[in-house]
Amino acid sequence: MSHNSFGHLFRFTTWGESHGPALGCVVDGCPPGIALTEADIQPFMDRRKPGQSRHVTQRREDDAVRILSGVFEDERTGGPVTTGAPVSLMIENTDQRSKDYSDIRDSWRPGHADYAYDAKYGVRDYRGGGRSSARETAARVAAGAIARKVLGDAITIRGALVQIGPRAIDRSRWDWDEVHRNDFFCPDAETAKLWEADMDAIRKDGSSLGALVEIVASGVPAGWGAPVYGKLDADLASAMMSINAAKSVEIGAGLEAASLRGEDAADEMYLDDNGQPAFRANHNGGVLGGISTGQDIVVRFAIKPTSSIRIPRQSLTRDLEPVEVVTKGRHDPCVGIRAVPVGEAMVALVLADHMLRHRAQTSR
Amino acid sequence: MSHNSFGHLFRFTTWGESHGPALGCVVDGCPPGIALTEADIQPFMDRRKPGQSRHVTQRREDDAVRILSGVFEDERTGGPVTTGAPVSLMIENTDQRSKDYSDIRDSWRPGHADYAYDAKYGVRDYRGGGRSSARETAARVAAGAIARKVLGDAITIRGALVQIGPRAIDRSRWDWDEVHRNDFFCPDAETAKLWEADMDAIRKDGSSLGALVEIVASGVPAGWGAPVYGKLDADLASAMMSINAAKSVEIGAGLEAASLRGEDAADEMYLDDNGQPAFRANHNGGVLGGISTGQDIVVRFAIKPTSSIRIPRQSLTRDLEPVEVVTKGRHDPCVGIRAVPVGEAMVALVLADHMLRHRAQTSR
Amino acid sequence: MSHNSFGHLFRFTTWGESHGPALGCVVDGCPPGIALTEADIQPFMDRRKPGQSRHVTQRREDDAVRILSGVFEDERTGGPVTTGAPVSLMIENTDQRSKDYSDIRDSWRPGHADYAYDAKYGVRDYRGGGRSSARETAARVAAGAIARKVLGDAITIRGALVQIGPRAIDRSRWDWDEVHRNDFFCPDAETAKLWEADMDAIRKDGSSLGALVEIVASGVPAGWGAPVYGKLDADLASAMMSINAAKSVEIGAGLEAASLRGEDAADEMYLDDNGQPAFRANHNGGVLGGISTGQDIVVRFAIKPTSSIRIPRQSLTRDLEPVEVVTKGRHDPCVGIRAVPVGEAMVALVLADHMLRHRAQTSR
Amino acid sequence: MSHNSFGHLFRFTTWGESHGPALGCVVDGCPPGIALTEADIQPFMDRRKPGQSRHVTQRREDDAVRILSGVFEDERTGGPVTTGAPVSLMIENTDQRSKDYSDIRDSWRPGHADYAYDAKYGVRDYRGGGRSSARETAARVAAGAIARKVLGDAITIRGALVQIGPRAIDRSRWDWDEVHRNDFFCPDAETAKLWEADMDAIRKDGSSLGALVEIVASGVPAGWGAPVYGKLDADLASAMMSINAAKSVEIGAGLEAASLRGEDAADEMYLDDNGQPAFRANHNGGVLGGISTGQDIVVRFAIKPTSSIRIPRQSLTRDLEPVEVVTKGRHDPCVGIRAVPVGEAMVALVLADHMLRHRAQTSR
Repeated sequence: MSHNSFGHLFRFTTWGESHGPALGCVVDGCPPGIALTEADIQPFMDRRKPGQSRHVTQRREDDAVRILSGVFEDERTGGPVTTGAPVSLMIENTDQRSKDYSDIRDSWRPGHADYAYDAKYGVRDYRGGGRSSARETAARVAAGAIARKVLGDAITIRGALVQIGPRAIDRSRWDWDEVHRNDFFCPDAETAKLWEADMDAIRKDGSSLGALVEIVASGVPAGWGAPVYGKLDADLASAMMSINAAKSVEIGAGLEAASLRGEDAADEMYLDDNGQPAFRANHNGGVLGGISTGQDIVVRFAIKPTSSIRIPRQSLTRDLEPVEVVTKGRHDPCVGIRAVPVGEAMVALVLADHMLRHRAQTSR
Repeated sequence: MSHNSFGHLFRFTTWGESHGPALGCVVDGCPPGIALTEADIQPFMDRRKPGQSRHVTQRREDDAVRILSGVFEDERTGGPVTTGAPVSLMIENTDQRSKDYSDIRDSWRPGHADYAYDAKYGVRDYRGGGRSSARETAARVAAGAIARKVLGDAITIRGALVQIGPRAIDRSRWDWDEVHRNDFFCPDAETAKLWEADMDAIRKDGSSLGALVEIVASGVPAGWGAPVYGKLDADLASAMMSINAAKSVEIGAGLEAASLRGEDAADEMYLDDNGQPAFRANHNGGVLGGISTGQDIVVRFAIKPTSSIRIPRQSLTRDLEPVEVVTKGRHDPCVGIRAVPVGEAMVALVLADHMLRHRAQTSR
Repeated sequence: MSHNSFGHLFRFTTWGESHGPALGCVVDGCPPGIALTEADIQPFMDRRKPGQSRHVTQRREDDAVRILSGVFEDERTGGPVTTGAPVSLMIENTDQRSKDYSDIRDSWRPGHADYAYDAKYGVRDYRGGGRSSARETAARVAAGAIARKVLGDAITIRGALVQIGPRAIDRSRWDWDEVHRNDFFCPDAETAKLWEADMDAIRKDGSSLGALVEIVASGVPAGWGAPVYGKLDADLASAMMSINAAKSVEIGAGLEAASLRGEDAADEMYLDDNGQPAFRANHNGGVLGGISTGQDIVVRFAIKPTSSIRIPRQSLTRDLEPVEVVTKGRHDPCVGIRAVPVGEAMVALVLADHMLRHRAQTSR
Repeated sequence: MSHNSFGHLFRFTTWGESHGPALGCVVDGCPPGIALTEADIQPFMDRRKPGQSRHVTQRREDDAVRILSGVFEDERTGGPVTTGAPVSLMIENTDQRSKDYSDIRDSWRPGHADYAYDAKYGVRDYRGGGRSSARETAARVAAGAIARKVLGDAITIRGALVQIGPRAIDRSRWDWDEVHRNDFFCPDAETAKLWEADMDAIRKDGSSLGALVEIVASGVPAGWGAPVYGKLDADLASAMMSINAAKSVEIGAGLEAASLRGEDAADEMYLDDNGQPAFRANHNGGVLGGISTGQDIVVRFAIKPTSSIRIPRQSLTRDLEPVEVVTKGRHDPCVGIRAVPVGEAMVALVLADHMLRHRAQTSR
């Protein structure tokens, strides 16, 4: 058991605090012989890194990732490949501001983990949230890039933001290409424009907004996952809920499944033009009985609004004195935006693990 | 790693199929010296067992649980107590009907795990769903009863059904006592009456309904859980999503958190009349940064409508022939009802595990 | 983590006490489609079961094993096969004598776990040693029989007793067939005869003897195991040391390796007549760097003499009073004899686990 | 499951190759509030590091360890303490010689893991042995230093070399202080002198010698460990056998236990002068039934002679051509010497893990 590791056979362990010298992860269980360089990882880092638009935190980090082990350039193979040994990845922190943290140090910021950490550990690295900072997700994205290499090109994992605050996209306008054209990973160009205004307003208010993220994995073969406690969807649920500020996880129809009738929820099967089993709908999000069906795997998770806001909130100090908390500094007014690449990474990591788990038991 | 185990320090492993001779579980890691007899477990079994009303399956099972190990009656202690050794629990199956399963054997029932199992294993115990049957949850409830004993009387775990199909309860009428008075674990007497009619209608239609379950754990001290991948809410998410037919998990405000503004989501703190830190709201469902806050822990999960319905559905046989599937026999028209005691058990199991995990690292 | 489970992918969990109603195990991770009936398991149980000769305990147990789950007889496949679901095995205890245990209850028997259990748990099922009884190894042997089925016929796992007390076999007379012809699993007929006399003498003395067990696994392909903490030999060491009364584990040359020079220990390689890599010696016991080499895997472990003897020993009661302990009743005068099938089972279980682990990472 | 992690609750994961830029480990599960700086770790690194005498490899590494996370200097506590977050440790490689490795690249060195790695992974970082290099043990020693802090001052873990080649120490001359005075961690000054000559001779011969290491842990309370598969001695066996070149593990009397009679092996108990339970002997090495007894925990392990020798050995290339292997370069003529601090570290790591495991289940 490790509170800072995720996965069983494809397993990664993260370390590092927001304002420490560096953060990183160790990826263990990687199959050997997979071509891997830092250039395979960096593009994913760049999608998550701060400072990409005015709608995210203005902290400046290159998030340059460095591979310290587990990869070897054998002259006979013509390029660096994984060796099966643990891959250690490190990202140096470069823009930790040496400001005065005394207010964060002594106050429990509402909505943050400050009080809970103090209750648990009695000591807390308060600088920038320490270990509870969303900066930890940089390591997930780095590990997720390796997971994608393990999964191979036949599996595609894409994420999108489908709601900011109360405003949801129009799903009839969904266009994956659009995701790359706006600052929100939004698949609906019109909604993206409205979100620009929403975000500018909320920033002006000194407040923040929640969001809903959707991740779709295509090309996953039928048969991955396991019944009961190794369910693919249970592991996805754990993975998504482990992302900072996540408050819900849905698979397929998700919460809406509660309102359905049996004949609507039970996706019918037929033989497609290639003579392959196919489904007429995907209310089950690509998972039945905890095992993949070959359909798209569809996962959604809600991210609560950033707790760091300029609007004053009542709280307590560590000495149990009342205090008014106002958070200045650099923060994401909608932390859900940058959760999109993180969600993609976590789905990739769950799938890579299940690929190996499936292979172990069934040799397929 | 085990696909049929759950938990790390308080850990249980289940086994058994719907139509095998028996099912059961092994509970490992139980602290020693806890008074435990079958009478501590049976009442929870009885709440989950089939045949309790016309709204659930008419299969008749006593679900009598037998303790086979891990408990010892020392004459000096005056009653059976746990010894710290694994507690093996067994429940015999008594009402497996020896009917002809040839239709289930060869067809992939829509919404069920049949196709996924065949894709994974190539062999499947089709009798009553085999391992994917909700009958497996009897073992969870048995293990959950032990978890409650480990947690002690200061922690209360209660569940309720808050929605069937599109009809939700009125939360202003919430009364925990009402949960024990109707066939639905419904905390709102008026909605319970409406559900009677809804359920009679859906049964007559040969269809089924989804539902939404809410579990509340009170008395959990602040500090349980862990950051990052050992988050209390991530483990709860995994636990809930592992329940048959679950499609969503929410903590606190859950999905609604996406629509909130920062000042609404960040629950303010104050000093209560006992001089203890307290919160003015609980949008975070008793968990911040993956660690309990001392507030009520609030978890919800959606259960899709039972896939076994009398309305014909199109599907395929194992030989890839089109087939129309009609499910007769004994089934829950709303499997969400009996998911309430299962959800309670899973929350108890997660909490007992985290109690030990917290103690291990912090000695508190 | 589970203190009563062993293995990672092929994983089993045992439960039960010496004088409880039954004992058993749950085997998880078994590949699907493997033919398995109780008749595959029982012969191994019979080799370990008590009462087979005058040199072992006279307790009478049929050790009849019952498969409760995880196997299904599909009419299309023509026989029961594993389904990939957990296999639950149960063995009823039938010859627990309802005698007066008050002396064992209150005294800490020297060499036994009584004092250690009390120090740890504060409560102890003292009847027949409870959980610490060698009766637990019946479950290992049952699980080991399944492991052999997973490994297949190309891998042979055989054990032998190579020393009882100070008398070792003459290795030049090693004959595997002889193992089945005497009461000691002894591969050297002449030594077996001497052991008869040794054992009769020690039994008459009311004392007991230690022993050395050797297990050889042939046919294991090169490449199983893993570097560093997943070493095949480290897992074998853990497995052997987990057997009751084991005090040493050796791989290949073992302890003797300390006395060797480099040129003797580094087994030379050459190309055999089939054009395959081969070794001129096997000082490394078939494992290099934690990974199998394709040679025979050779493991030895020492079993201390049975602590239950008729010769009086000084000890303490739970109330810290001096007491003289004399153990009557039915005991193995050399518990090492029945450790041979147990050691074989544990080697099979380690290998089955590593077969799946290897396949997971390398797809071979 | 992770092939590069060890421990369950106090758990560390190592990474890095002999000739990569760095190596290190992540220590997870560390209790919070423990004072920790690099100065607590470095002295242990210095005992293991190469180049300390003419009897070990002449590679020059400072082995300067750097703490990258998990420790925080809170002005209120007056010094850096652990926070409960993962502690990441890094050691840069500084003396990797950029020589021509083409002979190692293509040949399978006898006694080394080369062939086994190729059989498993198909690719191998051959520079200095890559991941299979004893350099990995630097990370163990660093993690072990933290384990010692967790265990506290009441527990002492000391190691000694008790045999080199066929020459063992005289135990009647055992003096722990002597261990620090010679180049061999030898507790017997006279034998140390003889070893000087033995080592000079073997070096001149271009050969190498095996050794036997003994580790003693004092002050461990009774009750740590667990029955069956969580045995303290089984975990010690796994830990010791995971050390490079280890071929045997013994607890207490170890292999000698096979030759004993029951009345000799079953250590008698009495009440000591403080009215505490005590033992008249320690044939069981401080562990009964897998659980500590409060006596000294005594572990021994044999280290085979270094496989890298100047004496030519026959082997094969990757292309299955016969080749004569002669290893020049910097190597330990007796790798057992530097295994002493490694063995100490592994014992500390096992004990710290079991301290937390014991606390979790029994709250003591």
